[in-house]
Amino acid sequence: MSLVRVDAPQPAATDAKPALFAALSARFGDRFSTSASLRAQHANTLTWIPCQPPDAVIFAETTEEVVAVVALCADARIPVIAFGTGTSLEGHVNAPFGGVCIDLSRMNRILAVHEADLDCVVEAGVTRKQLNEHLRDRGLFFPVDPGADASLGGMAATRASGTNAVRYGTMRDNVLALTAVLADGRVIATGTRARKSAAGYDLTRLLIGSEGTLGIITSLTLKLYGVPDTILSAVCPFASIEGACLAVIAALQIGLPLARIELADAVQIRACNGYSHLTLPEQPTLFLEFHGTEASAREQVASFAEIAASEGGGDFQWAERQEDRTKLWQARHDAYWAARGLQPGAELLSTDVCVPISALAACVGETREDIDRLGLLAPIVGHVGDGNFHVMPLFDPNDPEERRKVQGFLDRLIERALRFDGTCSGEHGVGQGKIGYLAAEHGLGVEVMVAIKKALDPLNILNPGKIFRYHHDG
Amino acid sequence: MSLVRVDAPQPAATDAKPALFAALSARFGDRFSTSASLRAQHANTLTWIPCQPPDAVIFAETTEEVVAVVALCADARIPVIAFGTGTSLEGHVNAPFGGVCIDLSRMNRILAVHEADLDCVVEAGVTRKQLNEHLRDRGLFFPVDPGADASLGGMAATRASGTNAVRYGTMRDNVLALTAVLADGRVIATGTRARKSAAGYDLTRLLIGSEGTLGIITSLTLKLYGVPDTILSAVCPFASIEGACLAVIAALQIGLPLARIELADAVQIRACNGYSHLTLPEQPTLFLEFHGTEASAREQVASFAEIAASEGGGDFQWAERQEDRTKLWQARHDAYWAARGLQPGAELLSTDVCVPISALAACVGETREDIDRLGLLAPIVGHVGDGNFHVMPLFDPNDPEERRKVQGFLDRLIERALRFDGTCSGEHGVGQGKIGYLAAEHGLGVEVMVAIKKALDPLNILNPGKIFRYHHDG
Repeated sequence: MSLVRVDAPQPAATDAKPALFAALSARFGDRFSTSASLRAQHANTLTWIPCQPPDAVIFAETTEEVVAVVALCADARIPVIAFGTGTSLEGHVNAPFGGVCIDLSRMNRILAVHEADLDCVVEAGVTRKQLNEHLRDRGLFFPVDPGADASLGGMAATRASGTNAVRYGTMRDNVLALTAVLADGRVIATGTRARKSAAGYDLTRLLIGSEGTLGIITSLTLKLYGVPDTILSAVCPFASIEGACLAVIAALQIGLPLARIELADAVQIRACNGYSHLTLPEQPTLFLEFHGTEASAREQVASFAEIAASEGGGDFQWAERQEDRTKLWQARHDAYWAARGLQPGAELLSTDVCVPISALAACVGETREDIDRLGLLAPIVGHVGDGNFHVMPLFDPNDPEERRKVQGFLDRLIERALRFDGTCSGEHGVGQGKIGYLAAEHGLGVEVMVAIKKALDPLNILNPGKIFRYHHDG
Repeated sequence: MSLVRVDAPQPAATDAKPALFAALSARFGDRFSTSASLRAQHANTLTWIPCQPPDAVIFAETTEEVVAVVALCADARIPVIAFGTGTSLEGHVNAPFGGVCIDLSRMNRILAVHEADLDCVVEAGVTRKQLNEHLRDRGLFFPVDPGADASLGGMAATRASGTNAVRYGTMRDNVLALTAVLADGRVIATGTRARKSAAGYDLTRLLIGSEGTLGIITSLTLKLYGVPDTILSAVCPFASIEGACLAVIAALQIGLPLARIELADAVQIRACNGYSHLTLPEQPTLFLEFHGTEASAREQVASFAEIAASEGGGDFQWAERQEDRTKLWQARHDAYWAARGLQPGAELLSTDVCVPISALAACVGETREDIDRLGLLAPIVGHVGDGNFHVMPLFDPNDPEERRKVQGFLDRLIERALRFDGTCSGEHGVGQGKIGYLAAEHGLGVEVMVAIKKALDPLNILNPGKIFRYHHDG
């Protein structure tokens, strides 16, 4: 295997693109477009990474259409970038080498719900909110919740996670099977509806988190859960971030089945109060949710209240009614927008790392010191039950010195996470933004990933320039 | 990619083996052996598949030694087969093309236990019982429990599962990171101690279940759990298998966090009564275990008792004391030996499939009818919370007609599982025994697996002839 090098995919013939576009236009009519505004909407929108629009956008409606596009693009040596809702944060949908963006948002059919088996089959463009609205009357829900109303295909492709992961797992844990279109246009179905299998390599998990570089996911079989009898939500302020982290560690150690346990630091609480019209004390705060029967949820609350008190936690503020609960979690989910509101006009970088839970207080503490030393405004929020936290520095994008400062902060954040035996990304993925850190985390493992990429996409047409940049030598 | 074909690995030069063995003997001394009895002990022991011993056995003590063996074998084009405890059931440790068996049982150091993080780092030869004995005083345990006291490296390599999977997951879910030696002797570390990561392809999950064909696992970072406050175990007889299955479905649907829920049919209960000196009624029976706080475990029991009564369940027989609990679960774990005892001298084939839970009663029922039609003696036991069940036909290995009958039964069992959207193996793996069924389940996915195998082991020296037989065309 060759070393990982920076390179473009195999160049297309000069006349390949016009011929390809003519063919696509003939087949897809007005579902094929090269309009500048549409192309820009399909490039990166929520990161500090510059937009790199594709050359064209196609709205696909079936797996067969995705096959047709991929096969034509493969013939022409033109990249293909899958697009769900565009809410990824590391440049995943950018088109650094141009190419055709396949927008899957119209593949939004819920194909089956198997209530007895607690699973469902959906097309890749179904969003998590759409699915949960569909399930509501059946007393079931899909738990993975990254905040944004992302498409389930995109969530699988980026191995998304979120506030419920401590109890219900991430996309890695909640996808039973996938249908995906490979780089040569073949279609694979990676699993069955069996809850477990020991039959061959785990292609489902290989595709989850592959960010559209190994295949384009067109449908998914997902695990579902019964809506718990009782859901209790609360916020609890702490005297220090360390105290809040220690309370979480203690709760996990005694096996409390916390459904959600989210940290927001004082800066983030100030932002949330402003954006979501709350009046929370501006202190490090845990957002909590307990699921269970009435009795077991109350038992969990009592156990956690005792732990919190011993770590400097203040009074719980309960959200008793469904509407209060929704408001509370909407405020948590709007952390990104609230943070942006702290300094209108500023650019915001949302990044994340994940460390072993015992290192969380130290890692967050050092990170806060670094932020203060740099004089940055940078709220911290975290899925602390997983050891996963987000930092969102605000900066002036036109000030090269500020950009440099933020880049240095980011480098140190990741160096720190790796030093604590953590990962450079808990849930945002690699995309373009974290390519540079992958070798530090995985060493030779990156070469194994590249070998797999080359084996399955020798022309490097599937979302090139993401996860790693690799040299096409075939 | 070429079609999957039956073929041997690239043939070694005629003089390669003596030179290799001289080099290995010089380096490993009496930890290298070609004794016939030792080689036979390292081939297949628990299946109806004939033993195919390796040419030599090496007892490795470090990752560096595994590297040295793999590198020398790669140079000589001689296969390498990793060996843990030899308790796999589908011929995983056979050496159909000869080669060197690396016995990892002496790599049995527990390298670290991180209590605050609920994880540990172990060498691949540590067995699950050894780990749990080490953890006992700390109030922690590792839950994956396939019955046999298998090595943790082997359990990862075969994606093992067992009685606790419905609550705690399988090896897929409980391995945070691996160290593995690749086919060219390079060593990769696939993860960190972070609970989740979105940083690149999931190499951990790719190696789990790869049965030694992509790399040799030499150490693992595993999730641990706090021993629950309260553990309640019981057996409950049912009027019918269907009733027992329906009770399990109902319990899962209301979200009861069952720790273990195991089915044994009447034939298996008769076997267990004989082998383990029990006096259970010879009826389909559920073995149950509830974990929680005192209050939540009692609440689970009350809920389940109500469900069981409505599905034809009889009185619960409780195992209150630790020793009674141990006896009960030992009887369940000894199901294989108990089944063998039903007909001394007979051969026993232990096979498994896994289906969506809603199909379990029908699939078990059709399977029982097939057994009865054939006049076979074949107990059924199952991890029914996962939809996973085992069938163990007994037969005379010297009677070709009986072997043919059993093979026909096996073919129909798997056809049936796939028809119910299940898998040809819930937890036993593919090995040699289920190679023929993989294409029926995965279709083109098998070609993707082969492409990955070729990319990572182009010489086909890692455990060749398992999962699929592939043609070396390089």
